[in-house]
Amino acid sequence: MIIQFEKDINSAQKEAIVNRVKGLKYKPTTVITQKGEYLIGTGKKDFDIREIGHMEGISDIHIVSDDYKLVSKKWKVKPTIIDLGDGVVIEEGGFQIMAGPCSIESEDQIRKVIGHLKENGISIMRGGVYKPRSSPYSFRGLGIEGLQLWYQLAKEAGIKIITEVMQVSQIAEMYPYTDIYQVGARNTQNFNLLDELGKVDKPVMIKRGISGTIDELLSSAEYVFSGGNERLLLCERGIRTYESATRNTMDLNAIAVLKEKTHLPVISDPSHGIGIRDFVEPIALASIMAGADGVIFETHEKPEEAYSDGQQTLNFEESTKMINRMRKTFELRESF
Amino acid sequence: MIIQFEKDINSAQKEAIVNRVKGLKYKPTTVITQKGEYLIGTGKKDFDIREIGHMEGISDIHIVSDDYKLVSKKWKVKPTIIDLGDGVVIEEGGFQIMAGPCSIESEDQIRKVIGHLKENGISIMRGGVYKPRSSPYSFRGLGIEGLQLWYQLAKEAGIKIITEVMQVSQIAEMYPYTDIYQVGARNTQNFNLLDELGKVDKPVMIKRGISGTIDELLSSAEYVFSGGNERLLLCERGIRTYESATRNTMDLNAIAVLKEKTHLPVISDPSHGIGIRDFVEPIALASIMAGADGVIFETHEKPEEAYSDGQQTLNFEESTKMINRMRKTFELRESF
Amino acid sequence: MIIQFEKDINSAQKEAIVNRVKGLKYKPTTVITQKGEYLIGTGKKDFDIREIGHMEGISDIHIVSDDYKLVSKKWKVKPTIIDLGDGVVIEEGGFQIMAGPCSIESEDQIRKVIGHLKENGISIMRGGVYKPRSSPYSFRGLGIEGLQLWYQLAKEAGIKIITEVMQVSQIAEMYPYTDIYQVGARNTQNFNLLDELGKVDKPVMIKRGISGTIDELLSSAEYVFSGGNERLLLCERGIRTYESATRNTMDLNAIAVLKEKTHLPVISDPSHGIGIRDFVEPIALASIMAGADGVIFETHEKPEEAYSDGQQTLNFEESTKMINRMRKTFELRESF
Amino acid sequence: MIIQFEKDINSAQKEAIVNRVKGLKYKPTTVITQKGEYLIGTGKKDFDIREIGHMEGISDIHIVSDDYKLVSKKWKVKPTIIDLGDGVVIEEGGFQIMAGPCSIESEDQIRKVIGHLKENGISIMRGGVYKPRSSPYSFRGLGIEGLQLWYQLAKEAGIKIITEVMQVSQIAEMYPYTDIYQVGARNTQNFNLLDELGKVDKPVMIKRGISGTIDELLSSAEYVFSGGNERLLLCERGIRTYESATRNTMDLNAIAVLKEKTHLPVISDPSHGIGIRDFVEPIALASIMAGADGVIFETHEKPEEAYSDGQQTLNFEESTKMINRMRKTFELRESF
Repeated sequence: MIIQFEKDINSAQKEAIVNRVKGLKYKPTTVITQKGEYLIGTGKKDFDIREIGHMEGISDIHIVSDDYKLVSKKWKVKPTIIDLGDGVVIEEGGFQIMAGPCSIESEDQIRKVIGHLKENGISIMRGGVYKPRSSPYSFRGLGIEGLQLWYQLAKEAGIKIITEVMQVSQIAEMYPYTDIYQVGARNTQNFNLLDELGKVDKPVMIKRGISGTIDELLSSAEYVFSGGNERLLLCERGIRTYESATRNTMDLNAIAVLKEKTHLPVISDPSHGIGIRDFVEPIALASIMAGADGVIFETHEKPEEAYSDGQQTLNFEESTKMINRMRKTFELRESF
Repeated sequence: MIIQFEKDINSAQKEAIVNRVKGLKYKPTTVITQKGEYLIGTGKKDFDIREIGHMEGISDIHIVSDDYKLVSKKWKVKPTIIDLGDGVVIEEGGFQIMAGPCSIESEDQIRKVIGHLKENGISIMRGGVYKPRSSPYSFRGLGIEGLQLWYQLAKEAGIKIITEVMQVSQIAEMYPYTDIYQVGARNTQNFNLLDELGKVDKPVMIKRGISGTIDELLSSAEYVFSGGNERLLLCERGIRTYESATRNTMDLNAIAVLKEKTHLPVISDPSHGIGIRDFVEPIALASIMAGADGVIFETHEKPEEAYSDGQQTLNFEESTKMINRMRKTFELRESF
Repeated sequence: MIIQFEKDINSAQKEAIVNRVKGLKYKPTTVITQKGEYLIGTGKKDFDIREIGHMEGISDIHIVSDDYKLVSKKWKVKPTIIDLGDGVVIEEGGFQIMAGPCSIESEDQIRKVIGHLKENGISIMRGGVYKPRSSPYSFRGLGIEGLQLWYQLAKEAGIKIITEVMQVSQIAEMYPYTDIYQVGARNTQNFNLLDELGKVDKPVMIKRGISGTIDELLSSAEYVFSGGNERLLLCERGIRTYESATRNTMDLNAIAVLKEKTHLPVISDPSHGIGIRDFVEPIALASIMAGADGVIFETHEKPEEAYSDGQQTLNFEESTKMINRMRKTFELRESF
Repeated sequence: MIIQFEKDINSAQKEAIVNRVKGLKYKPTTVITQKGEYLIGTGKKDFDIREIGHMEGISDIHIVSDDYKLVSKKWKVKPTIIDLGDGVVIEEGGFQIMAGPCSIESEDQIRKVIGHLKENGISIMRGGVYKPRSSPYSFRGLGIEGLQLWYQLAKEAGIKIITEVMQVSQIAEMYPYTDIYQVGARNTQNFNLLDELGKVDKPVMIKRGISGTIDELLSSAEYVFSGGNERLLLCERGIRTYESATRNTMDLNAIAVLKEKTHLPVISDPSHGIGIRDFVEPIALASIMAGADGVIFETHEKPEEAYSDGQQTLNFEESTKMINRMRKTFELRESF
């Protein structure tokens, strides 16, 4: 169950509610976010909602039997809106594109990508400065200096930054230079990282795990939300299956299902979802029809010279073409 | 390698070509289809195509190193067109919809579906009379009598029939009443069935196996083609993965990849691909953007009363809405 | 539910029982096997077993709610014994080994394998004469002539034959020359083949599907059993997963689980389960500890010259060593 | 390539070697561990080992083309021995058992498990004080206080401790109380954690990822090794597949393959591998036959009252029986 407290609730009222919840053999957990205060009750027994609902200090109460509660649409029907400031908003009904290289490489590279984004009216740039790599001997990113450089150039251009955070100690370090923290597929169940991101007042985009279930993705989001941060996005980026013709198997079913289960915006990453440059566009367009609220993809002036993921990165010409088609596809979907 | 013979080739010329192929340590297989005669050479050694290409009786020669050859686009760039007669054609660039119930149940049911298809301008009806079921105690279809009844009603209405064939002995039995033979996901690697379908002069649609790879699907099509039947369609219907939130995991990557690898039309089956009524539409629209040449889906007057697959079957209202949206989505894609 | 009829039941008694079952909203299916006559009732409603149990003509009644019934241990606790005659028996508590080449190739090859089996006290030889191959251009087996030749040599040597049947029309053809019909992984859900094998009075070994579940394997066995043939074996041979370091992922969990769910003997196929010669032995020994009642594996005088599966086939020296170790491992397990 | 430096190498010699490696277009990475100093060269071009091998300061050089190098058996044939002190050693040829509860719960619980271990001659106790849980509302472990309490009791009893570390900040905190750091399946690719564990002088056991490949597990070990810590163990604990009859699919193939690919000890975790109490023993015995150097499993005085994983935890009676059988199985294997 989710109990929303009234703003002016007093401590005696709180205690009474907590005791009533315990009396039902439910375990109470208090959650305080930027937007409000909640009491989450977890338990198994059926109960009559009226036993609690009328108590003083309660603004609303909902029964949510899933493992994830605060991220569920059963409780919050209204879609979550992620406002990055300066008019940049990610929300249901307002298609957002995030594009950029796999890795941030150099000032020149950043400038060129920013130029490309500006030409196409894109407001959010992706790029990695901490790179999770299977081998310890691979390029592992430019680190915080790369991010600082990037931030300076992006800010001048009025571009927002989404970039991956890999560990707790980076959260504070990255804070001044980041607009959206991205949690990568290998960290979807790095629960300490999720806990700490719950304490931050910047949006977090959580990618689905390499072989994560839809429910696990929602539970990971529940970690951040219950830690105090409601500003969350979910991202489908393909799952691991037996099929080796493509890098991953893009699971567009998941986008359709997530849009029904949660009030959080759902983003599609076709670059990782299929992993082959020529097929990024059809999968991007398909994911919009499946219900995505935004698309994140990889682009680079010269993909064949990129430090990483070149095989799935679009050049600027391909990128421009795809951006136009995505917008038309979104328009058609919204007309339905 | 694929060698296409000239129409007036004589037996001495053929023999000379076969011997040359053997001389290269390639194993020759002669293929005679409704449309022409080919010699397939399988082997590993590199060779100079000019050693063979100039020989008398050869109209064309191609090097195709994949396991599948005749279904490869490397050899036949022009898309295959499946003409069912009466102006009903399945082909790249001309979107076809096939709809109908999971199982054929009764005259009344058939009449109602046909009425619904006519209203929506659909020319191909799907339905099962032989049903593959995990349990021997489940409903296993009306059999040949059901097909005969269906055929009579469909013919009167000018509707073509696609229906599943489960075993060799059914091929001849079904022949007079079937426009497209469907090979189900459990029979994708039933090689004897594929061999025999190679001898038939009616189109065959092969569904991807429960956990079949893209290459295995193409090799299964190669069986039918090399058996003599070029009139083939491929169908993506979702694969088995660890994710249990949906019945299968629709692999739209496969549609994008197949469209590049083969000249055969590619059909999407969103009903089985996601298996949940509410999400069939987004997946159908997505599959069009991924490149599908057609969509096959399940509809029934009263899905909740259907003998099988009710949970993924659309009622007529939902079906009509989806048909209109699919056509608009296809139009947009073609405008790109 | 499973109702076992008394041997001298009369038709009036049968009718009364069928009507009672229908009255409970259960669907009755009559099953007549070589060993007895059963009525299978499928339905969902709970009922009091005493409503039926006392009726005349009933020897026993069991409630089995799984999809598979006759193969369930919930009904038949005593393990099924497969007697091939001449003292060759496959059963729980009596370890049987079946060995031989992937494909039957020649008289010389057969003689050598038989010699190897005799030296090691093995009574059942495996080998394929009908080979399911992904590509139509691969070697597809010697067919019925190969089987006839093999049978003659095996019979002289007192060796039993297990070999794969791929389609209905082969059942009768193979009958005089076969001791155990094997259903391959691509045919586990070829329901027509299973139906027909239900009419045969020789044992059938069903391999788990490429990505078949444990329950699906049991349901496939239910097909043959309910078709009339109780003489069944199940075989774990590895499943398809994302891991590509090995040919398949041997699922020894399945052996442990099957031994609890069914009364049928469970056989392990380590050759296909891992697919790499050097690792066949550890997986064979492991599968015995997991509970296998027998092991089937591939051996050939010169694996590197085998027509198929050479990479997972043991030479005779490796085979002899493994046979000895398997027997010692089985002895230890039985001592527990 | 792996270049082992001589102990008395001087800096001029080092520089010369690094330059030669760079000259071959190989990227050099220096690795200093507790046991020696190495230069790892990563690149693609073939080269003649004699171009480098004769240089001064080199004690040995090996070509290892895999992504993982220092953990490869191609370089270090002799198995790695993990010496925990007080005569407790984990090594090939010397079977070690680690047992204990999923979660550390209380002093009483710890005492009882220690008693059980002592009675059975077991020297290493497992248990979790930081618990990774899908839901933020589940029990997440007693934390450092629990570990301190456990350590005190274990030390008195002469028992070593293996326990999971979830994040970088816990490494130092846990250090005084831990004998082996365990990296859980959700953190196998938490590269920052692996980096930091490379700086520690205590052994680390890395579990295979939820859907990790064998190669990824080896690459994760390479992180720790190249970070400076050679004292590593690998653990197979089942992978995620489509089969839902068991919690995970225990991949015993992986144990056989790992034993050939790496010099590190390989441990089996049958409790997570199958996840069902009744089947833990057969899978434990099977994993020994597959080649495991040790087994880690869950036991609790009253599994049905355990805070977590009760369904896969053995009671002491079951545990004792399994321990005896594991030892006999290991003896038999070693006799081969």
